[in-house]
This record gives sequence, structure tokens and C-alpha cells, in this order.
Amino acid sequence: MWATPAIDVWVASASPEGEAHLVPLSLAWTAERLVIAVQESSRTARDIAGSGRARMAIGPTRDVTMVDARLEKLVDVDAAGELGAAYAAQADWDPRGSAGYVFLVLRPERVQAWREVDEIAGRTIMRDGQWLV
Amino acid sequence: MWATPAIDVWVASASPEGEAHLVPLSLAWTAERLVIAVQESSRTARDIAGSGRARMAIGPTRDVTMVDARLEKLVDVDAAGELGAAYAAQADWDPRGSAGYVFLVLRPERVQAWREVDEIAGRTIMRDGQWLV
Repeated sequence: MWATPAIDVWVASASPEGEAHLVPLSLAWTAERLVIAVQESSRTARDIAGSGRARMAIGPTRDVTMVDARLEKLVDVDAAGELGAAYAAQADWDPRGSAGYVFLVLRPERVQAWREVDEIAGRTIMRDGQWLV
Repeated sequence: MWATPAIDVWVASASPEGEAHLVPLSLAWTAERLVIAVQESSRTARDIAGSGRARMAIGPTRDVTMVDARLEKLVDVDAAGELGAAYAAQADWDPRGSAGYVFLVLRPERVQAWREVDEIAGRTIMRDGQWLV
């Protein structure tokens, strides 16, 4: 599902001061990693580089997959090799060549999927980086 | 738009330790305030009560309204009077009578609306709590 072309993700991050940030971004899924592209100077990049973590949501509000992820690496878009090619192949834009952009490569640790709140219990499908389904 | 029946909102919050949280919730818009209902023990309630702030997104990823909001008050759902009635009238569920639930009443401070990233500049439609449009 995460390999769907031109799919988007909501990315929530927090500053060291405890201020939340949230933006929608294009998503790629390659080599079992979630990949987003942002300006290195953006709140999202700075927050995730600082905390090493992001909470992400894929899908509409009532058929959602929530992901708690850890930053594995931050790569300049023009030094990303296969990663950059994989991102550009899935997303509907190509950040390569855009000055100041980086890829954030995130490893999912916990994944939950639900439609409505009464389903949340028991809907963990990944825990500690291991798929349960 | 925010008064649309059965509308949802993405709510991002942060803990004092700088850990981001994100959940989709039902939204009500009454008396110029955004209202959500959550368990008082939830991460969302604790984060927002602690920081006094939330960042919220309404709409799909490519036609989104982003709101930076401040907590005005936190009210037990069964002591909310007209607020509870307004929430139940707009949302497709009624938290009143559910033990442990509270309404968080949030005042929008900054609002931005865009479809794609190239539109973000100039799309601030509220600043410092004042509508610019």
C-alpha cells in the first residue's frame, strides 16, 4: 500500500521545546523504509533530525494507518543514488537538483491501522519493527 | 467550512519531552472556536493541556487548511452546556455521558490554506487570530 504511486503522508514532528509541527508530504516506500523529501532548513527536517522520530499518518481520517518511525539517515537529494531514483519513480515530483533538499529515510517501528476509534485496540500491525500480520 | 457536519481534523501535539503525537478526530466549530473531544488521559489531551497548543489540519493532503491553535479551555463533557450540544449537533457521535472525556476548546491563531507546495507563500488567511480574507 505504501508503494502506491503519488501517495501522500501526514508528518508530525516536535521541536526540542515541545512545539508540534504537521505537514502533508509526498511519500515513497523503498527497501522497507519510508522516504520523504524536505528542505533541510524546514521545521520538519530540523525536528526529525533533532529528535530522531516522527509520527506519520497515511490514508484518510477514517481508514488510516498510523506509523511511529525513527530516522535512519538524512541524505542530500543529489547524493542519494538509488534512493533518489526510487523516490522519483514513486512520487509525482523529483526533488533532485533542488538546492537545500534532503531525503529523510525513516524506519517504521510501530504501525496501527483503523477505521474508527472502536477498532484501535488490537489494530497494531507492527511492533518494535516487526510485522505482526 | 469548519462547520461541515461530521468533519474530521488531524491533531498534532507534542509532549514536554519533545515527542510528537498525531491522531484524527471529529471536529466541531462553534462560537469561533475549534472543539475536539478526547479522553482526558489521552496523549492528545495531556500534550495540549501541557503546552497550550496544537497544530491541526483539515481537508485532504492536497487541499488542506493548516491551523495553529491555542487551548482556551478544557471542559468535562458533562459540564459543557451549550458547547456539548453544539459538538453533538455537528459531529456524528456524542461524547456526553462517556466517563473521562473532555472537550478541548481551541482558538485558531494562524491559518494557512494550500493545494500544493508552490502555493504556500501568500496563503496565510489568519494571522494573530485575525482573518485576513
